[in-house]
Amino acid sequence: MQDITVVGCGVMGGSIINALLNANINVTIVDINKNAAEKFISRGAKYFASLDEAGDNDCILVNLPNHKIASGVLSNANKERLNGKMLINTTTSSPEEVSAMDQLAKDMGMMHLDAKIENYPGDIGSDKAYLIYSGCRQVFDAARNVLEAIGKAVYLGPDIIGASVIDIAVLDVHFGAIATLAESVAYCIKYKYSVESFIEQAKEILPIMLAGNYRAFSDECSNYTGSFEDASECTLRIETTAMKTILDSMHSAGVKTPCGDSILDLFQKGIESGNSSKNVVAIVNELM
Amino acid sequence: MQDITVVGCGVMGGSIINALLNANINVTIVDINKNAAEKFISRGAKYFASLDEAGDNDCILVNLPNHKIASGVLSNANKERLNGKMLINTTTSSPEEVSAMDQLAKDMGMMHLDAKIENYPGDIGSDKAYLIYSGCRQVFDAARNVLEAIGKAVYLGPDIIGASVIDIAVLDVHFGAIATLAESVAYCIKYKYSVESFIEQAKEILPIMLAGNYRAFSDECSNYTGSFEDASECTLRIETTAMKTILDSMHSAGVKTPCGDSILDLFQKGIESGNSSKNVVAIVNELM
Repeated sequence: MQDITVVGCGVMGGSIINALLNANINVTIVDINKNAAEKFISRGAKYFASLDEAGDNDCILVNLPNHKIASGVLSNANKERLNGKMLINTTTSSPEEVSAMDQLAKDMGMMHLDAKIENYPGDIGSDKAYLIYSGCRQVFDAARNVLEAIGKAVYLGPDIIGASVIDIAVLDVHFGAIATLAESVAYCIKYKYSVESFIEQAKEILPIMLAGNYRAFSDECSNYTGSFEDASECTLRIETTAMKTILDSMHSAGVKTPCGDSILDLFQKGIESGNSSKNVVAIVNELM
Repeated sequence: MQDITVVGCGVMGGSIINALLNANINVTIVDINKNAAEKFISRGAKYFASLDEAGDNDCILVNLPNHKIASGVLSNANKERLNGKMLINTTTSSPEEVSAMDQLAKDMGMMHLDAKIENYPGDIGSDKAYLIYSGCRQVFDAARNVLEAIGKAVYLGPDIIGASVIDIAVLDVHFGAIATLAESVAYCIKYKYSVESFIEQAKEILPIMLAGNYRAFSDECSNYTGSFEDASECTLRIETTAMKTILDSMHSAGVKTPCGDSILDLFQKGIESGNSSKNVVAIVNELM
């Protein structure tokens, strides 16, 4: 595939267009704001203010601020012109919104591949870019070179909500790590200890620390029943004691720990439920 | 160095002793519980119930349940026998406790290297084991082969509290990730979506997602002033909107989000402080 229409030329859409032009793909831009498209027009991109005016490319990639805007743009476009075309939607959206988009795509006669971007715009087009896709396999295969120009492309399966479920789930962990990263940076600063050294070590240590937990969560929750085996290495009670030690130390350094406090409370509820000798994964019960 | 005394033969101490014996190092075990040591005695380890009875090895590694027990064992031992020896302490402890241990080591005439273990016991002795050290460089160099038999050995510098500060800081992020990992697993289960697939993707995506934040926290907080540049890619307001979307979606799936709620509250306080166009690192202010 050598031609694609990209709807949306904001920070993320612009990064995608840049990567596609770098890969010598012909890009048609659709955006109400022509200014945002100027730098790409000068590099050979075509520009139109609306989807109905745009050229007749087989594949349309949509990257808009939210689902409401994305579905508005599609449902207001000429249905006959969209019939039979491929839709790749990278707009951030919940599983319910993705299902609604899938119904809209069916109504328009389009083949629909949902896409979620797992990196910041600055990494698009580099080997750090990582995108997950779910839905129509035919679109994934046909647009493969386009998708790989954007970043690493991982197809999760035909279930259209897959990419959105994983996107939301991963983002939640991302933000849990960010909030505690901020607590820890504040803690290092209080001790006048090198933030750079902490960050350098965190990059090394966290994949190691999380390896055991990734394993435990996957093994014990893949067929979730609500009951868990006793932990072989480190029980919820031991983890809770460790968390308490950390928070005591952070408090004594004068650091607030809203995220850490919520973690300790969650762990303690897990112990009260009788899960003290279980792995930390047993707290999943408290969240259901 | 071919001989070492290990004080403490619990789950972690036992894993360390196992790794040392595998590396053909002569181990003298000190523990009040002889039963725990039996399996190592049969492999050639010596055993004594107290430090004063133990052989005269130059290097003593202490791994006990907490600082109070570790400092009790050392302060009750014969000072003349410990004079001039090397102390490596892997006991979990706060910076204040490490400072107290350092004073005790000085009083006993010992050279002191503090150590913190960043992995679960099951990974000790494998290429997944990772330990950080701070304090006396001479001990680190002399005991190098012993330390490398336990795991990857990283020397942080002569500041004795270094390893404990980084240990606490990294553990806090670890637990932030664990709590949100549990939220996300609950979310996948609610959508009947594969937990294994989520865990597999989380392992790939999280280092990528965190790369930008590691960079930002390091760049903007290494010389902390309390003021931050505007974000170039993704502002605190955008991050907050994303977090809100995630929590709405998790709530609509019937998942409780105590950790996520605390994150959103923290981000919103950051915006109220006037940091909406700043990078997410600006929330460090709210924690100080």
